Amino acid sequence: MNNMNGGVTAPAGFYAAGLRAGIKAGKTNKDMAMIYSAVPAVCAGTFTKNVVKAAPVLWDKEIVDNYGSARAVVINSGIANACTGKQGYENCRLEAVKTAELLDLKTEEVLVASTGVIGAQLNMEIVEKGIEMLVPALKDTAEAADDAAVAILTTDTHKKEIALSCVIDGKQVHVGGMCKGAGMIHPNMGTMLAFVTSDVCIGKPLLDRLVKEIVEDTFNMVSVDGDTSTNDTCLVLCNGMAGNRELREEDPDLEVFKEALKQVLTYLARQIAGDGEGCTRLFEVTCHGAASREDAKTISKSVVCSSLTKAAVFGKDANWGRILCAMGYSGVTFDPEKVDISLESQKGSLAIVKDGIATDYSEEFATEILSANPVKAILDIHQGDGSATAWGCDLTYEYVKINADYRS
Amino acid sequence: MNNMNGGVTAPAGFYAAGLRAGIKAGKTNKDMAMIYSAVPAVCAGTFTKNVVKAAPVLWDKEIVDNYGSARAVVINSGIANACTGKQGYENCRLEAVKTAELLDLKTEEVLVASTGVIGAQLNMEIVEKGIEMLVPALKDTAEAADDAAVAILTTDTHKKEIALSCVIDGKQVHVGGMCKGAGMIHPNMGTMLAFVTSDVCIGKPLLDRLVKEIVEDTFNMVSVDGDTSTNDTCLVLCNGMAGNRELREEDPDLEVFKEALKQVLTYLARQIAGDGEGCTRLFEVTCHGAASREDAKTISKSVVCSSLTKAAVFGKDANWGRILCAMGYSGVTFDPEKVDISLESQKGSLAIVKDGIATDYSEEFATEILSANPVKAILDIHQGDGSATAWGCDLTYEYVKINADYRS
Repeated sequence: MNNMNGGVTAPAGFYAAGLRAGIKAGKTNKDMAMIYSAVPAVCAGTFTKNVVKAAPVLWDKEIVDNYGSARAVVINSGIANACTGKQGYENCRLEAVKTAELLDLKTEEVLVASTGVIGAQLNMEIVEKGIEMLVPALKDTAEAADDAAVAILTTDTHKKEIALSCVIDGKQVHVGGMCKGAGMIHPNMGTMLAFVTSDVCIGKPLLDRLVKEIVEDTFNMVSVDGDTSTNDTCLVLCNGMAGNRELREEDPDLEVFKEALKQVLTYLARQIAGDGEGCTRLFEVTCHGAASREDAKTISKSVVCSSLTKAAVFGKDANWGRILCAMGYSGVTFDPEKVDISLESQKGSLAIVKDGIATDYSEEFATEILSANPVKAILDIHQGDGSATAWGCDLTYEYVKINADYRS
Repeated sequence: MNNMNGGVTAPAGFYAAGLRAGIKAGKTNKDMAMIYSAVPAVCAGTFTKNVVKAAPVLWDKEIVDNYGSARAVVINSGIANACTGKQGYENCRLEAVKTAELLDLKTEEVLVASTGVIGAQLNMEIVEKGIEMLVPALKDTAEAADDAAVAILTTDTHKKEIALSCVIDGKQVHVGGMCKGAGMIHPNMGTMLAFVTSDVCIGKPLLDRLVKEIVEDTFNMVSVDGDTSTNDTCLVLCNGMAGNRELREEDPDLEVFKEALKQVLTYLARQIAGDGEGCTRLFEVTCHGAASREDAKTISKSVVCSSLTKAAVFGKDANWGRILCAMGYSGVTFDPEKVDISLESQKGSLAIVKDGIATDYSEEFATEILSANPVKAILDIHQGDGSATAWGCDLTYEYVKINADYRS
């Protein structure tokens, strides 16, 4: 597995573009992006489980479930196209129509994604002009991938992309990805906007299974604020241009691709948590010793979701009582008197709870550990061998500020 | 139903005291309280469902479940006596022993409650001295009830107490209550510390049923921060000194007492939400038109728990998209295109969403409505006739400040 520069254009045959169409306020912010594959790409996706689904989520779900293959994705930031009724769905369809027309594709080969304010309608004049600019700007360079990764951001503070390569069937296979996160992050079976490309050759049912399985362990283990968005979307496009023989269930190289895909999604998931709205620190919680992997996931996610624990991380306060409390209300049964907790960062590591009560630890050293970024908490409940990791961030004044003012 | 001055001493035969023993830092904060009944009182209680239960929760649960009657409650603030292991439980027992000794009671007639920092051990020298001071200070006056209501507070900004009277079987019956809230408020079948007294004559099984039912609709519909405490406790003591014939299931006056108890618990629940840590406004959400009452509860609670909605209330931003989003991820199925939302406060009321999309409302007027306290959101999903109300508060800089610094 080799890390590479770049993002979604790293795999063969993928092109991207990102530019300013004029949806966002201000004069300089990029707000539209496009991904294009030279040949049809098998596509899998996971989407929000929120009953209230944005128009592009409904559109993409239809394509992923019924067609399973796509050539382009058109994305805008600034407006989520959620809670926009029939008009919103029609606007979404028109985006696909326009993109298909200019790229000479079928409408159902174009996926659509939006992120931003809920409830506002897209200005279709601006959006169609944006699409007209995006198509000629499509390039297969790392710079083009960067532009796209920047254009999909909202309150994110930096772009999130990754690319890596591996060898499958003697061929170089690439996996690239980009995503945006920041707020309303508490994915449920889907996630915020994430786009992953690969030139691997793989069938639709196998890709579906892999994506579903990996998303459960990556994006679905992230929480910034407990709010599950209306727009959560993770799309994975594989165009087969690496030239490997089609990956199948029994293929020994399947593990190589699965590991590559997992590394990409884990990286993006951590990036989202570490760039949560207003956050100063990525907070990673690993639970060991659970009766099952499911229990470990429930406990670690409960801790990263606890407002009180998040505020304590912000305050560099080793308030282990809040961690133990959040473990306790997670819904998993365990013996509180058999819990060990330690903290870890680049400053060192420290056991703060042994058998459910505080060790004789140094508060000063604990504060020093908590002042670094990222911060890890390692929990062991000594019930079995289930382990899992969840990612979140601290709760800060800035989170409140961003979200008290977001629309103004 | 008549409102009265005072709190837990309003019912006949109840005494209270509150004073400073020296558990909390500072020199003036009261930190211990006691309630005493001149005769044995039937007691019911609900407690935290957190797997991690504080020592006094374990102690009280034993008494409520196995004895069903008590004479005194001893309470401290400053230290929660949670996650304190065998030593913590022994300290809790010693509090009961000391109180029983001085009041000439059996140890199992003394309930114990604690609230404050998790993980620290009580200094029993201070606590026992506190009990020695509390016993001679017990009085049946409104001032004594006030002292007790103040002594149980932590980060609360004001005391929370209520008393009212009603007529049952021709006799004046009184119900008094006090509680503390502030942070780690997301009760699950129990609640933070709440103490309710009554001189009504009622049997244990009937009281148990009433309390369980009413707590579900009051304390369990409150959330400040989504964190379910280790110490949640609601105790109801009824000593029968009003002289009414014992209330029974078929008694026509049962509804009168039930209504009185519900008014007391609703008042205390609203007080807790409105005094959530750092909050500037009580946020009340009522959901109408749900297929069932359970669905209405789930939806309204999901909205008061949404960090993004809470931050928007703080920012006086009528961000209805976040409300609809929180309804959508609540787990209840409904048609997003049949949702109506309106906002209401003493400044007026305003329909902001009709059939799932924004009305042509005035943002200025919406901001004016949201600047008052309390603020109400009324949701209608037009699926049936289930209704419910939940209480929460806004998310502010001050919440983060309090909880980043709490232990220092």
